[in-house]
Amino acid sequence: MPKSSDTSNPRIQKLINQFSGLGIDAFLVTIDVNITYLTEFDASESWLLVTPSKSFYITDFRYILEAQKGLKNIEIKQYDRSMFKAVFEILTGLKFKRLGIDERHLSLSAFKELQKNCPQGIGLIELSDVVEKLREIKEKKEVDAIRDCLKLHHKAIKYLRGVIKPGLTEEQVLAKLEVFVKKHNAGFSFPSIIASGPNSCYPHAKVSGRKIKNNEPVLIDTGIDIRGYKSDLTRMVFLGKIPPLVREVAAIVKDAQTKAIMTIKAGVPVSVADQEARNHFKKFDLEQFFGHSLGHGVGLEIHESPRLSVKSPAVFKAGMVVTVEPAVYIPGPGRKFGIRIEDMVLVTDKGCEVLSDQTA
Amino acid sequence: MPKSSDTSNPRIQKLINQFSGLGIDAFLVTIDVNITYLTEFDASESWLLVTPSKSFYITDFRYILEAQKGLKNIEIKQYDRSMFKAVFEILTGLKFKRLGIDERHLSLSAFKELQKNCPQGIGLIELSDVVEKLREIKEKKEVDAIRDCLKLHHKAIKYLRGVIKPGLTEEQVLAKLEVFVKKHNAGFSFPSIIASGPNSCYPHAKVSGRKIKNNEPVLIDTGIDIRGYKSDLTRMVFLGKIPPLVREVAAIVKDAQTKAIMTIKAGVPVSVADQEARNHFKKFDLEQFFGHSLGHGVGLEIHESPRLSVKSPAVFKAGMVVTVEPAVYIPGPGRKFGIRIEDMVLVTDKGCEVLSDQTA
Repeated sequence: MPKSSDTSNPRIQKLINQFSGLGIDAFLVTIDVNITYLTEFDASESWLLVTPSKSFYITDFRYILEAQKGLKNIEIKQYDRSMFKAVFEILTGLKFKRLGIDERHLSLSAFKELQKNCPQGIGLIELSDVVEKLREIKEKKEVDAIRDCLKLHHKAIKYLRGVIKPGLTEEQVLAKLEVFVKKHNAGFSFPSIIASGPNSCYPHAKVSGRKIKNNEPVLIDTGIDIRGYKSDLTRMVFLGKIPPLVREVAAIVKDAQTKAIMTIKAGVPVSVADQEARNHFKKFDLEQFFGHSLGHGVGLEIHESPRLSVKSPAVFKAGMVVTVEPAVYIPGPGRKFGIRIEDMVLVTDKGCEVLSDQTA
Repeated sequence: MPKSSDTSNPRIQKLINQFSGLGIDAFLVTIDVNITYLTEFDASESWLLVTPSKSFYITDFRYILEAQKGLKNIEIKQYDRSMFKAVFEILTGLKFKRLGIDERHLSLSAFKELQKNCPQGIGLIELSDVVEKLREIKEKKEVDAIRDCLKLHHKAIKYLRGVIKPGLTEEQVLAKLEVFVKKHNAGFSFPSIIASGPNSCYPHAKVSGRKIKNNEPVLIDTGIDIRGYKSDLTRMVFLGKIPPLVREVAAIVKDAQTKAIMTIKAGVPVSVADQEARNHFKKFDLEQFFGHSLGHGVGLEIHESPRLSVKSPAVFKAGMVVTVEPAVYIPGPGRKFGIRIEDMVLVTDKGCEVLSDQTA
């Protein structure tokens, strides 16, 4: 029996299995990270056209040799002037009629170009989150890749706790962190946040030239990237004597996290976990200071589906890897500071496994 | 006389000056880099609504405090559930009727949401490259920012030439480069390319575990990022004795670059420069091995307008900063290698200034 491409790539096959439900007979993947996920090849500036019988990697001259080297069981199609024309040349040849497109990862101008080039008889079906939904559930090897990131991440936190001291600026601490991570041949998932004292009140503070002082909290939110997979943890570092209010809020945030984590289990709505943290803050009249959602999926991207929000209709599924990051940001003046504690968990049928070392 | 926002921000004023020509009375900026350019504030996950009387920075809770701290003369509007609704609330209040949108930086799904929320009486005008065209021409302080990147870039090249040696892998050389740059508190404009021997044949080679050997070329294409502005240079490093063919091709590429640079001057079509390099390669029957365009603009993004291509209708203007990077990639087997030489130039009325140190 001849081996067809569908059986040789289980991720692409999962996508193809959804075609009839989606009412399509081909799907055009227009964002690198989804192509990388489906092909396990580090895609750049390319499109992937998936059909039930065959998939096509469409790219230009600059990337063609790399693609030939790295892609298996996928036909490589070099385009010269127009990616759009290349898509329809393939589809017309194969007689497919209903092309699914990803409306979240196609600009309005690219969509108009697609429409302009689309021959009569082929319909464009506007879809969203098709590959993202597949990516929600991590395979064992993906979880292992995240574990590798966390291993180095824990080391980096330990290193930072050892070198951070009053008088250093946030930028100097960042430079130390960056050199440490580079020396371990890894990268960052996102620009690190090192926010000291009142700066910790800004959920997405920019690293500044502010000197870290004694007796104030330092919020460190960073992520390691190893071969595309990512970690994301926030730790609070306390230098000197911590004011009672800061200490108290930190304990409340920690308890909110523990309670939220205890709700996480396959089948439970994600909103339940978010609400649990919020309910805990309510008891202390702190709920108005927790302005973002509880967490988010992590994998090839730092923010993936699902978003752990009270508004989300999503339900936890075994294999999801999500952050749990309750926070309280007390605005100024006088007592301005923020506390965020963020760990990563793997959802299972029985509950969840905390992947990160909460003692690190 | 009351100071209005238009005079306080010359970049936004330049945009407003185009409104009547574009047939709009407001413009929605939907990509961070354009917002950063217009406001000189490091924007994230926000939109900027520009109207002749006032501009509005629309963002959510997480970024609001940072925005209040960093933005001058721009009204900050926090949205809760929908960025789209926030836009039209403002427009309806101000009675504007024709909203320009950026079709290249609005996904199809975001466009549909905009349409859904758009009240009767307001029209969406689909435009492209409006802010990008303003960004083409660099102000003196932008050129200075690029010069700062180049200064460190030259040091990094010098450092690399000192430490690179046969037996090191490409990844090890990259790690050295990354630590060097981090120690200087700078970042990278893009993932560096360090491509040795046959790997240099791939225009966008991925850094590999390959050990660098004697008697082969190493292509190093990297870029420094300091506070958002960027450099982009490619240097060839030759270890040991270089085969005559490699040496010969390197000299031809260098000559092609010199000839192309000599054509650059405000008023000259960019295609002339690209064609000049191609004509030079033609003399040696090498033109089929130069598969990409001659260069591109650089600024807040690594690839900006204009693209120096034979197909481009663009014309050089004083203040443009562009790369000039002719290349020859000789495919295998047996003699597979690539040579690319890339420098950065500032277009002037009299010709151009080479910003990078060509001897570095």
